[in-house]
Amino acid sequence: MSQQYSSALLERAVDEFSKLPGVGRKTAMRLVLYMLRLDIGKVDAFTDAVSTLCHEVHYCQVCHNISDSDVCQICSNPSRDASTICVVENVQDVMAIEQTQQYRGLYHVLGGVISPIDGVGPSQLELESLVERVDKGNVDEVIFALSSTMEGDATNFYMSRRLSKYPEVKLTVLARGMSINDELQYTDEVTLGRSLVNRVPFTVK
Amino acid sequence: MSQQYSSALLERAVDEFSKLPGVGRKTAMRLVLYMLRLDIGKVDAFTDAVSTLCHEVHYCQVCHNISDSDVCQICSNPSRDASTICVVENVQDVMAIEQTQQYRGLYHVLGGVISPIDGVGPSQLELESLVERVDKGNVDEVIFALSSTMEGDATNFYMSRRLSKYPEVKLTVLARGMSINDELQYTDEVTLGRSLVNRVPFTVK
Repeated sequence: MSQQYSSALLERAVDEFSKLPGVGRKTAMRLVLYMLRLDIGKVDAFTDAVSTLCHEVHYCQVCHNISDSDVCQICSNPSRDASTICVVENVQDVMAIEQTQQYRGLYHVLGGVISPIDGVGPSQLELESLVERVDKGNVDEVIFALSSTMEGDATNFYMSRRLSKYPEVKLTVLARGMSINDELQYTDEVTLGRSLVNRVPFTVK
Repeated sequence: MSQQYSSALLERAVDEFSKLPGVGRKTAMRLVLYMLRLDIGKVDAFTDAVSTLCHEVHYCQVCHNISDSDVCQICSNPSRDASTICVVENVQDVMAIEQTQQYRGLYHVLGGVISPIDGVGPSQLELESLVERVDKGNVDEVIFALSSTMEGDATNFYMSRRLSKYPEVKLTVLARGMSINDELQYTDEVTLGRSLVNRVPFTVK
């Protein structure tokens, strides 16, 4: 697709934007033209934010989440419950759980799940450091909050084996069942079966 | 939506990305995490391309397209036909026409169309400079290549009035009719009617 741009600078900026995931050349052009209409100060704020983040990013030494310093804002927050660790796959999962406002413990970001087909084994993940955190004591519960997939389940199984030498630590997994607002007849049979088996006492809120 | 980010730098970068049109916070997060995984050199190339474009952008003094210098690459190309001017609304339209590879003349970027409802009158557009270009002579044809909307038609009418004192200059408008691959029964009646009225001699290519 040879296309004559009126400006080499424009072409370069469109090229760069179109490298982003899910951004084609038309979207890239729209984004670039939007940036061109902005005050130059806002453009500088954008490029500075991206550049500063990528140059100065740290990963928390405790939970491996993205952080501004050696220990992240969540791990260093004294009002959070340090006896509970929620194991998640990635940074977005931390944010998804934070948004529920139902969790006050700490996290552990694995960086993926065990997936032999993708060549991801336990050694590529932050699994040893999880065992070390539990080994230090003061942990009452480890919550497995991985995706509800074969790989997630395999990783849960691996973690439960590695943590079996700490019988005082409770291992839990996120509840599986019908989504809120789901209609029963359209819920898949596996999920519905699990909802039935794991039914809980009815309470009036 | 209060959401605890583990990193203020991360939050700032997500904020900036989510200001882009059509980019919500989840997409912004995905883009930022993608940038974080890149080599730092590629991040620098991205921010530099955006920053350089926005700091150094020029608009062509002849056609008002985005340019690296005072006269754009299209207007300064001696192999293009300077006797034909194609009037378009914006920069994307120039690129759409360039991609057809069917046009070798020059352009004139209006910067919009006349739209009283949006407060856009002739004085906000590059209409005077179009008349000046025609007034200098050496122009045989002006092609109106605006969108096929009420505003586009009104702008075409305005331009035809302003250019009526140059009877030697041919004024043309893009053909309206069935799109390539359209099925006749699904073509709207106005378009189909225009296709019929403006039918052309049948030729075998």
